[in-house]
Amino acid sequence: MDLRHVGEWGLIKRFTRGSVVVPERVIAGIGDDAAVLPGPEPGEVLLATTDMLVETVHFRREWSTPEDVGYKAMAVNLSDIAAMGGRPESALLSLAVPKRLEIAWVESFSAGLRSCAARFGVNIVGGDTVASPNEVITISITVLGSVLRDRCLYRHGARPGDVLMVTGNLGGAAAGLALLQHPEMEVDAASPLLRRHRRPEPRVEAGKLLSALGGVTCADDISDGLVSEMYQISEAGQVGLEIYVEKIPMAPGVNEVAAFLGYDPLELALYGGEDYELLFTVAPGAVAKVARTLREAGIEVTPIGLVLPSGEGISSLRGLKRSPLPPGGYEHFRSN
Amino acid sequence: MDLRHVGEWGLIKRFTRGSVVVPERVIAGIGDDAAVLPGPEPGEVLLATTDMLVETVHFRREWSTPEDVGYKAMAVNLSDIAAMGGRPESALLSLAVPKRLEIAWVESFSAGLRSCAARFGVNIVGGDTVASPNEVITISITVLGSVLRDRCLYRHGARPGDVLMVTGNLGGAAAGLALLQHPEMEVDAASPLLRRHRRPEPRVEAGKLLSALGGVTCADDISDGLVSEMYQISEAGQVGLEIYVEKIPMAPGVNEVAAFLGYDPLELALYGGEDYELLFTVAPGAVAKVARTLREAGIEVTPIGLVLPSGEGISSLRGLKRSPLPPGGYEHFRSN
Repeated sequence: MDLRHVGEWGLIKRFTRGSVVVPERVIAGIGDDAAVLPGPEPGEVLLATTDMLVETVHFRREWSTPEDVGYKAMAVNLSDIAAMGGRPESALLSLAVPKRLEIAWVESFSAGLRSCAARFGVNIVGGDTVASPNEVITISITVLGSVLRDRCLYRHGARPGDVLMVTGNLGGAAAGLALLQHPEMEVDAASPLLRRHRRPEPRVEAGKLLSALGGVTCADDISDGLVSEMYQISEAGQVGLEIYVEKIPMAPGVNEVAAFLGYDPLELALYGGEDYELLFTVAPGAVAKVARTLREAGIEVTPIGLVLPSGEGISSLRGLKRSPLPPGGYEHFRSN
Repeated sequence: MDLRHVGEWGLIKRFTRGSVVVPERVIAGIGDDAAVLPGPEPGEVLLATTDMLVETVHFRREWSTPEDVGYKAMAVNLSDIAAMGGRPESALLSLAVPKRLEIAWVESFSAGLRSCAARFGVNIVGGDTVASPNEVITISITVLGSVLRDRCLYRHGARPGDVLMVTGNLGGAAAGLALLQHPEMEVDAASPLLRRHRRPEPRVEAGKLLSALGGVTCADDISDGLVSEMYQISEAGQVGLEIYVEKIPMAPGVNEVAAFLGYDPLELALYGGEDYELLFTVAPGAVAKVARTLREAGIEVTPIGLVLPSGEGISSLRGLKRSPLPPGGYEHFRSN
């Protein structure tokens, strides 16, 4: 039996059992966007997250500049801290690169990495570099951050009656990737869709606001697709979820790309992944304040659904028609 | 110009410039065994280190069991915390694995990882798993730890007149690797030399004792070879160093392996790497106490040299004959 049979989640479970030997030093371990540990200031917790980017899986040298790759590698990690409501602070980098890689590539990669880190006030404090035995570049970044202990936004915590909300808009990163995979669609190199794939923007500011506001019961970042994160929130909080399909905020241009390629635009928005928006649930009484505060900060935010009791499962509503939403999204160990 | 021209150090320098944007949140960044950050308890600092292991570079599936690989991946990171005098506490894992890898391999790898972590009281608190696009397994681990702020053992700090000391013995890991590379040498599978390569033991207890004792002016772990670490200590502290060749504690069996293969055993001890012993300098007045305390704890320790003024360079003494010690050790981006 190989990894295609158990999938990423089955794999993670194999690392979770017995992973904590000194419980008093962990507030929350494997299973959320970041680990939560005793923090550097009283009342604060330390957040720690790690994400790996592998060439051909997460980026291609012909589709992204080295600056883009560096920027994205940092951004996807900062997004995990944002999803906990935290302030990212320090980053460590592990990098496997082919010996024959041009120094210029590494210098530009490093500039992209620093540019994203600096923008969010993150110090790069350590790392390791090794020669890759094949031509594949592998990047692993760990980011540390902090948040007030009682303001940490966990994945669990959604309660029936809470409103499901999302920042920004969806489907853009998947449509951008589709554009790169289909060069026959001539497209302006400056298209915001390409940028969504190449340089995702972590929602650090939104995460901090959500943490400060109160009334936010759970949060997650959308890395593997909206539906995939809904399943995570549902499992973590033991709740059902429904979304209103007409409310899904589509990224501008997604409909056009989907029409050209014969895709369902909604598929891109629901299952595409890599949008790195925040998906979160809010107690009914706090929805108006949350929406107003984020919009005043220039952050688009949309109520897209509702939290239901656990037995209700995960479904979509189009008008009055309810359909179950099957799981899906990016799965690393898929058979095909 | 590619990476073979600048080497690992030249590569690291490209990530160091401009890496700190909020200086008050870093006590020491890139350049030591671990980063030093404001800590979770008053008077303590947080240590953070990351090390990547790549299949065929750091291990081979035919030479090490999956348990060995997991144990080693954790151990080399704990060794970096030990070299700072710290207590390791939490670990995060990034893992790229081929889709067709047997689940049994991952389960055993995970057991090895946990066994090393548990032995040293380390929780595994997070991670990321991705499918490797080729057959290569890549492992990146980040370990967090802590140490009293004024007891942190930096790489800099050696002063002329200090005594250079080393824990345990040297050359064992390199000899073990040589045994695996030369199956014509029939060897007991339980040979301690093989174990030195497959399951290095991080000197966590020694590091804690050295931190607590006082009088230890600098410390480093021997990952890339004794001479390589001497160059690091020399550069960081702006000092010269000399070692007495007759004093080098050779791992049992190294002479025999070297004789069989026609190697110089001293080469294995000085340049072999992966011994993961601690190399440290001690103020003259504290040497006796340091040696006694470590030996009482069952840790072998040997004075092997002296710290000299900066202009003196790095040399070895055999009897009264002084020779310069050329740099060397494992270099990832070497041309050949």
